[in-house]
Amino acid sequence: MIEKSHTLKQQIIENFGTPCAVIDLDRVENNIVRAQQLCDKAQVANRPHIKTHKSPLLAQMQLDAGAKGITCQKLGEAEVMADAGIDDIIIATNLLGAARSGRLAALQRRVALKVCADSAVTLTEYSKAARNAGRALDVLVECDTGQLRAGVETPHEALKLAQIIKDDAMLNFAGLLFYPATDSWQQTQVFHDELIKGLTSIGLQANIVSTGGTPNFVNVGKLRGATEHRAGTCIFNDRMMIAAGVATLNDCAFEVYTSVVSRAGAERGILDAGSKTLTSDTGGLEGFGYIIEHPDASINKFSEEHGFLDLSQCHDKPAVGDIVRVIPNHVCVSVNMFEQLIAVRHNKIEKVIPVTARGKLV
Amino acid sequence: MIEKSHTLKQQIIENFGTPCAVIDLDRVENNIVRAQQLCDKAQVANRPHIKTHKSPLLAQMQLDAGAKGITCQKLGEAEVMADAGIDDIIIATNLLGAARSGRLAALQRRVALKVCADSAVTLTEYSKAARNAGRALDVLVECDTGQLRAGVETPHEALKLAQIIKDDAMLNFAGLLFYPATDSWQQTQVFHDELIKGLTSIGLQANIVSTGGTPNFVNVGKLRGATEHRAGTCIFNDRMMIAAGVATLNDCAFEVYTSVVSRAGAERGILDAGSKTLTSDTGGLEGFGYIIEHPDASINKFSEEHGFLDLSQCHDKPAVGDIVRVIPNHVCVSVNMFEQLIAVRHNKIEKVIPVTARGKLV
Repeated sequence: MIEKSHTLKQQIIENFGTPCAVIDLDRVENNIVRAQQLCDKAQVANRPHIKTHKSPLLAQMQLDAGAKGITCQKLGEAEVMADAGIDDIIIATNLLGAARSGRLAALQRRVALKVCADSAVTLTEYSKAARNAGRALDVLVECDTGQLRAGVETPHEALKLAQIIKDDAMLNFAGLLFYPATDSWQQTQVFHDELIKGLTSIGLQANIVSTGGTPNFVNVGKLRGATEHRAGTCIFNDRMMIAAGVATLNDCAFEVYTSVVSRAGAERGILDAGSKTLTSDTGGLEGFGYIIEHPDASINKFSEEHGFLDLSQCHDKPAVGDIVRVIPNHVCVSVNMFEQLIAVRHNKIEKVIPVTARGKLV
Repeated sequence: MIEKSHTLKQQIIENFGTPCAVIDLDRVENNIVRAQQLCDKAQVANRPHIKTHKSPLLAQMQLDAGAKGITCQKLGEAEVMADAGIDDIIIATNLLGAARSGRLAALQRRVALKVCADSAVTLTEYSKAARNAGRALDVLVECDTGQLRAGVETPHEALKLAQIIKDDAMLNFAGLLFYPATDSWQQTQVFHDELIKGLTSIGLQANIVSTGGTPNFVNVGKLRGATEHRAGTCIFNDRMMIAAGVATLNDCAFEVYTSVVSRAGAERGILDAGSKTLTSDTGGLEGFGYIIEHPDASINKFSEEHGFLDLSQCHDKPAVGDIVRVIPNHVCVSVNMFEQLIAVRHNKIEKVIPVTARGKLV
């Protein structure tokens, strides 16, 4: 790890207090370039998922590095990105709440969105929204291939939805959305090939075939027919990505600066970052976050504003008042807790980046 | 449960989309009155913890019902409450980040705060902040009595901190802060009595002796010497409070309205509320939240924006497009994810209450 100088910690606490979120711009830029190069090499377009950073400024950095467009998970995120002038957007979820509230139509009037569906009900709502917007809406059919997330489970069901889209004047069939597990690439290929055959038979073409996920970069381009990849976490990385073997500590660009606020017991301590800061997402790991200055200390419990430290295995124990830096288990949910990211380079604060789309739930 | 009419669900989705947060004002008012009555009966002052609702408007309702003042967990919360004219505030944590950033002194210039400490380091920072503010700061000593949260572990250590406060012209000794477990009331009494004896011997008096927690209402007033109680969750209640036996479903005033956005498998479904809405706080319970319309469905996993439903035990399975209401496991962290609470009474939307102090991390 780059050893952050005492002076930077002092500057940060004097200007922002703790807990606060700090990103290392050199690492962010390296991570952006690396993702773009992996997509370039695999000859698929890069469409980063902005759910991780929720910041138009960082999305623009990704576009400037060569990304074709962006992926959002919520309409509210897309609204923020559209406000910033970004107009090539896939929203990768069934949007029912946003469609029924009229916000989908309102945004569709401003930006030609691409949205996703895995049911006829969703398509009905999209059709209504498009009619209200006054222009047809591009729809991708979301397909599951073993992960049991959103997405139809069979090519047959996908084809039925494609037919509904084809038959609806307010909807355009735009392609397919996959999120294969890293070990189910073959299964996805079988699903994909059968579906493409069916689409061809009804006169449809999948202009977009999207794969997703940072761990899936190991397989990017392996799906014959894929046209683009959407990954979010890789811009910052986190403890989950290290555990998955797709990032090292040196690739982690997001850190929570937190103060040790209590050492009431000999073997325990308390940070001022709890579940309202780092969140209770474990990502399947032991402990909540990696403490850079004390890797042998573990955050073994949270209250809302406190992280409880087990220091029994920690030789050089932190003292009250120390500021330590934590890499969260799951960076996407932790970023979402902050109003701003303090962007540093070479131990200097370069700028403050607002997390403009944080907490956009609809 | 009150059966919310179809019309209310429609109004809510048309005006706000999903997911959104809805509070029942009758229940909120009942909960506020009940907490006040329990304190009145026990002859201790009521100082509700606003970390649960983070809204000046709801804090004012608590004050109007008889609360003496409020408790905050973060300086940023206290800033929001002070902006709304509330001036009797305890901040119940060691404030190091806020003290060193200058924000503690800035707020102390406007409002006479009461803050907490469990170490000499914290007291040093408080003294500096008070000097910068130009007036002495009231400090409570935080004591642990078996929970291993913040707080000194022995009366002897508490007394040492009280002496430091006494010797510092910029600090006033204001009292003691306890958070006893429901089963450690006797232990707290022993700690308290020994400490009071010590304080008397150095000429100090604990004007405030605060106990805390919604589950601890069963013991409120039992600690001889307690002057006030601070509880947060009881304004809304949640699945944890039901599990703890201190609330019923009918006492739960906060619900997340969420759409069923996918039914891609026969035994499974997906809600548009995931860990960025309900949070991954389990509160030690199985599943994430209670679905009012489908109590035999379980939310068994989250992704960031999706709640995954296991419908294998669910006889009357929800359909795509259904709106269901979820009582979260832990309401305090879920409220913090929303920008606003939709306040309803008798199936009518009465007003929208901003969660002004949400995400105040420092």
